[in-house]
Amino acid sequence: MSQADHSISAAILVIGDEILSGRTKDKNIGFIADYLMALGIDLREVRIVADDEQDIIDAVNALRQRYTYLFTTGGIGPTHDDITADAIAKALGLELYEDPRIIALMLERLKPEDLNEARRRMARIPRGADHVENKISKVPGFMIENVIVMAGVPAIMQTMLDSVAPRLRTGAKMIVETLETVGLPEGLYAKGLGEVAALYPSVSIGSYPSFGEGRFKNSIVVRGKDAEQVAAAVTAVQELMDRLRAEQA
Amino acid sequence: MSQADHSISAAILVIGDEILSGRTKDKNIGFIADYLMALGIDLREVRIVADDEQDIIDAVNALRQRYTYLFTTGGIGPTHDDITADAIAKALGLELYEDPRIIALMLERLKPEDLNEARRRMARIPRGADHVENKISKVPGFMIENVIVMAGVPAIMQTMLDSVAPRLRTGAKMIVETLETVGLPEGLYAKGLGEVAALYPSVSIGSYPSFGEGRFKNSIVVRGKDAEQVAAAVTAVQELMDRLRAEQA
Repeated sequence: MSQADHSISAAILVIGDEILSGRTKDKNIGFIADYLMALGIDLREVRIVADDEQDIIDAVNALRQRYTYLFTTGGIGPTHDDITADAIAKALGLELYEDPRIIALMLERLKPEDLNEARRRMARIPRGADHVENKISKVPGFMIENVIVMAGVPAIMQTMLDSVAPRLRTGAKMIVETLETVGLPEGLYAKGLGEVAALYPSVSIGSYPSFGEGRFKNSIVVRGKDAEQVAAAVTAVQELMDRLRAEQA
Repeated sequence: MSQADHSISAAILVIGDEILSGRTKDKNIGFIADYLMALGIDLREVRIVADDEQDIIDAVNALRQRYTYLFTTGGIGPTHDDITADAIAKALGLELYEDPRIIALMLERLKPEDLNEARRRMARIPRGADHVENKISKVPGFMIENVIVMAGVPAIMQTMLDSVAPRLRTGAKMIVETLETVGLPEGLYAKGLGEVAALYPSVSIGSYPSFGEGRFKNSIVVRGKDAEQVAAAVTAVQELMDRLRAEQA
């Protein structure tokens, strides 16, 4: 039986014109990818869309139905372009309401006369949503069904991930082994590596070239959840490399 | 008439398990976003998918039909997990063939006996595709219909963008003005900013908080293609800020 049958999967939806325009370089995708990997949740897809309600709704519905969890970042502030809560409520067919518990949290930091209409928008969450705590600026994100809605500011998003993590179902942790292929070009080991990959279908084997200082360097990454299968595949890759080096010498 | 009617749009599809696992932090999205902005092409959506043929096909077909151009990165090397060319050919219903011009390029750098089966895989492109030159390792990417297929290694991807750029239709350049909101919290100007945004529908106005050294800093970005409208919106935002500062003083 495939390990994948028991896997917990996830997608990320990044919401924000500022990422698509290049103005802001996203730092959340890589952080969440690492975080989910450590939890044993498989990140399977990422989308970045503009601050456009229909685009957000379409992406939310495509992703929440396909994966165990959908994490969104961005668009939950007080300005007119912050429309994530509205879009999530529409995507799920739920009423958006002003949560008095969030108003109370805001009043811990604001004078009542400063709690204006725009700031009150941040207290609106879909009916039935749970808070996702924000340790920095207090106004929480929320989790509704399998959708986790977080801020776009990285420091806040990270505290929200910490807050929601204990509530998530997690799968078997991925075991990851990396081999450096010193002196062997990718084109030389590609065929043999494909044969090893075919022998260990529960294991994912990737070859990742990088280029710097005028030369290529390759890494081979072996990933899987079955420790014995990963170890056997690593041994097979190592033997392949040793054989190819011997042939080159 | 809306400026958007004349806009040239694009999406990016990043292909690679290594991004989703967190092993590699993507550097291509931000680079391409900046590059397209400078060309006057509007980046509207980004997706990241795994090295899974059906996932790639589905994303390619969704994105190439919706936008003027689709740029893909990753998955065009010689190893078993490099399946982008196969998936693109299937998505477009085209035959994949070994291009003798690419074999000739490879033989400029390889001895004939080193041109093995795995390396020959990199010479396969869909029937009718044009090359996208690779100044670093020579094996080209390709452009077929409105899909531009590039390497995942950033240095190579960047030479490919330079190679394909002269072939692209470009739109009016985006004019971008950034205002710093020193001393004004986002919640204070959010309502007024929304009113300005409503007055200038051809202009996009975003408010971007960032957090560092224990405090928030906000930027307001005004973007549009009509210089007069952008200038008028910037003036209106500036007047709003001046008024709010005067009220606070």
